[in-house]
Amino acid sequence: MILHNTAQVNTRIDAGTILTIDDNFTTLTDHSLIIENGVITQISPTESVQHIIASEHYCLPNHVIIPGLINAHGHASMALLRGIANDLPLNIWLQEHIWPAEGKWVDSDFVSFGAKLAMAEMLKSGTTTFSDMYFFPEVVAQMAQTVGMRTQLACPILDFPTAWGSGPDEYIEKTLELHRAFESSDLVHMAFGPHAPYTVSDDPIRSLISAAREHSLPIQMHVHETQKEVNDAVTNSGKRPIKRLSELGLFDPDLNTQAVHMTALTESEISLLAKTNTSVIHCPESNMKLASGFCPTQALSAAGVNIALGTDGAASNNDLDMLGEMRTAALIAKGDTGDATALSAKECIRMATINGAKALGLEQLIGSLEVYKQADIVAIDLDHLNTLPSYDLPADIVYNTNASQVTHTWVNGKLLVDCGHLTGIDEDMLKDEARQWGQKIKSGNK
Amino acid sequence: MILHNTAQVNTRIDAGTILTIDDNFTTLTDHSLIIENGVITQISPTESVQHIIASEHYCLPNHVIIPGLINAHGHASMALLRGIANDLPLNIWLQEHIWPAEGKWVDSDFVSFGAKLAMAEMLKSGTTTFSDMYFFPEVVAQMAQTVGMRTQLACPILDFPTAWGSGPDEYIEKTLELHRAFESSDLVHMAFGPHAPYTVSDDPIRSLISAAREHSLPIQMHVHETQKEVNDAVTNSGKRPIKRLSELGLFDPDLNTQAVHMTALTESEISLLAKTNTSVIHCPESNMKLASGFCPTQALSAAGVNIALGTDGAASNNDLDMLGEMRTAALIAKGDTGDATALSAKECIRMATINGAKALGLEQLIGSLEVYKQADIVAIDLDHLNTLPSYDLPADIVYNTNASQVTHTWVNGKLLVDCGHLTGIDEDMLKDEARQWGQKIKSGNK
Repeated sequence: MILHNTAQVNTRIDAGTILTIDDNFTTLTDHSLIIENGVITQISPTESVQHIIASEHYCLPNHVIIPGLINAHGHASMALLRGIANDLPLNIWLQEHIWPAEGKWVDSDFVSFGAKLAMAEMLKSGTTTFSDMYFFPEVVAQMAQTVGMRTQLACPILDFPTAWGSGPDEYIEKTLELHRAFESSDLVHMAFGPHAPYTVSDDPIRSLISAAREHSLPIQMHVHETQKEVNDAVTNSGKRPIKRLSELGLFDPDLNTQAVHMTALTESEISLLAKTNTSVIHCPESNMKLASGFCPTQALSAAGVNIALGTDGAASNNDLDMLGEMRTAALIAKGDTGDATALSAKECIRMATINGAKALGLEQLIGSLEVYKQADIVAIDLDHLNTLPSYDLPADIVYNTNASQVTHTWVNGKLLVDCGHLTGIDEDMLKDEARQWGQKIKSGNK
Repeated sequence: MILHNTAQVNTRIDAGTILTIDDNFTTLTDHSLIIENGVITQISPTESVQHIIASEHYCLPNHVIIPGLINAHGHASMALLRGIANDLPLNIWLQEHIWPAEGKWVDSDFVSFGAKLAMAEMLKSGTTTFSDMYFFPEVVAQMAQTVGMRTQLACPILDFPTAWGSGPDEYIEKTLELHRAFESSDLVHMAFGPHAPYTVSDDPIRSLISAAREHSLPIQMHVHETQKEVNDAVTNSGKRPIKRLSELGLFDPDLNTQAVHMTALTESEISLLAKTNTSVIHCPESNMKLASGFCPTQALSAAGVNIALGTDGAASNNDLDMLGEMRTAALIAKGDTGDATALSAKECIRMATINGAKALGLEQLIGSLEVYKQADIVAIDLDHLNTLPSYDLPADIVYNTNASQVTHTWVNGKLLVDCGHLTGIDEDMLKDEARQWGQKIKSGNK
């Protein structure tokens, strides 16, 4: 497993415990990770790598090291609208609060700062890759590169004009432009982000599927967020949304399709997802908070569907904490099915790591700690009252670890959080600016 | 509102924001709390109390000050069995894992150290009062007094002998002895803790109800933890547990009865609880983790039933974090009912504070920040990325505040957590000892 020939490497991390999240869920104690040029080049017992001199050497004996968490669905810039409307159903929340606020405030400045705020929160809580579906994706792309975070930008496509463009044709064209512009980036990946079945009509869906095939781009779409969405579609068209999307060709093993939310599924719909290698992105806290419904994770998992995990935007969560999201996923899977064995702690950790990588088509690069993969790595300090004593490490991570226990976060081998502090962002300035944005938005005066 | 005549007081806390949790949910900005002899003696605008000199003076401009959280149901010492068995249904979890582990390990040393570990975790996450149902309550009482934490000890009563006693008569007698021993304590309150309908038969229930009436002691009991419990009772006796307990006189406005869990309730059972002023203690994370069922909080609340909140033991949660418990309560109430307005953030905060005080019969002493009440107070630092910007403070507390943001905890006016550090417990020693206990229990060698 040794790739390097020199005894001088970039980074060596000596870890008390490593959860590799490889196929066997291999857990290593007293092992070290060696990183060169952003890549994991060796994972060996610490006692066997004492001769390796690293420019950066971290000794983390009380920590568990896990792959960077992958937040597979969100709207990062909505961090600026965190908690602006609460305890309201989806349609009122969206139509009476979020859309008006977005109509008034969303421009490239809002998106740029909101994305930065979200990235800072995500990095500090152990997320190294996020998928984003929001206006001005080119601004988020730029910020992700500046911050050094990995992202899939699901560029928005809707039937109607927005601050970002005039309509479907322009959205698709802009997505392809961005794809060309960032094709050589190792951090930024483009995808099509058709908003939802009820906001994108057949022709644009056909066009974007065709473009996705041609350019090998993923498609991420909100599908079956609520029972109401399904009922309305049946009333209006006689078809459930998944049937319509299936007829349009969205579910196909040759495409990378990521269906977000996915409540109110039938058995045959679950079979279709399994047969077509469609990934489901589960957003349990947002689904609960908006009373959208339960995504049937146990049935999907039993059918072999790849399930990843997302926080959704901070306006419906209200944080971007993937450790908390794992916990909620585990708890409600059991509550919903009445089966306490549903969605084990290990399954939840897979959902937040390797399954997220598979969903985004990045499983060759990230999602587990294995030699040749990119060094997207998180260290969690277990030396806290709420994680002692420890009998079952995956359960500790899912059920009783707090986001503040994340101490170190590396993306592409670069240390972005060091002992709980952001290395590349002035956090005090960021918080001041967030407060100023909040005051401005509350005042209503742009 | 000024009770003191001198300008010299024990403690003055200048707060950015105070959530009083009084009847009107009054929120005060730039106000100060004055504490004398453990009692809140004044709450006034900070600018008006500049002349008051305090022995201890805290300036917390970025903080929200709330009443100490009340964890209304748990088994503190089970912190030592945190996460020892996961992703298992209640009966297997209990019969194949917890009861054997308890049979082997539970003695007064286990209870004493486990309770200390739990109290440390609770204080650091903002809990100032906890209800406990476990063996050797006299040991927990002693530890609570040593630590300085407020507690209701629901002394266990079961049909069979345990490490703590020979049977119901002795359990009841021991409870009354403890009540006499701690009657003058301002921190420790006794209650009867009949374990569950299926472990306590009619005669002991009649006896403890009679003793509870005579000595004005509360009764806390697990009731309707699962649908199976209800079904088994109907099969065995032809009666649902609540009907049987009602016939025995447990639900009565003249008693303080606290029914824990309470899933699978009928409308008439909910009416009975409302009519008899019975409190329900909701333990959402434990109920989800063990797939026990959903407590119908929205229906109970609509009927006027007092609902408090508990973590249950760390073996089925797996932490003792009441902020997280509020979040889970809010989320699953909406998920279960399909109504996003169910259990608002404000209602959740009430459940974790004043409703807990009412359930424990301590609402004259604690549960809100009002003049004459005991100074059980918690400060939460809002100057974190995940709580910025802020539009809706109760929602921030429930949906996106992390337990690590608790910086100060006072009980009875005494500062027990200062800037995140325990003032009266050596945390490093505590953690070392917790690890040693864990290793011993894992090894199986007592």
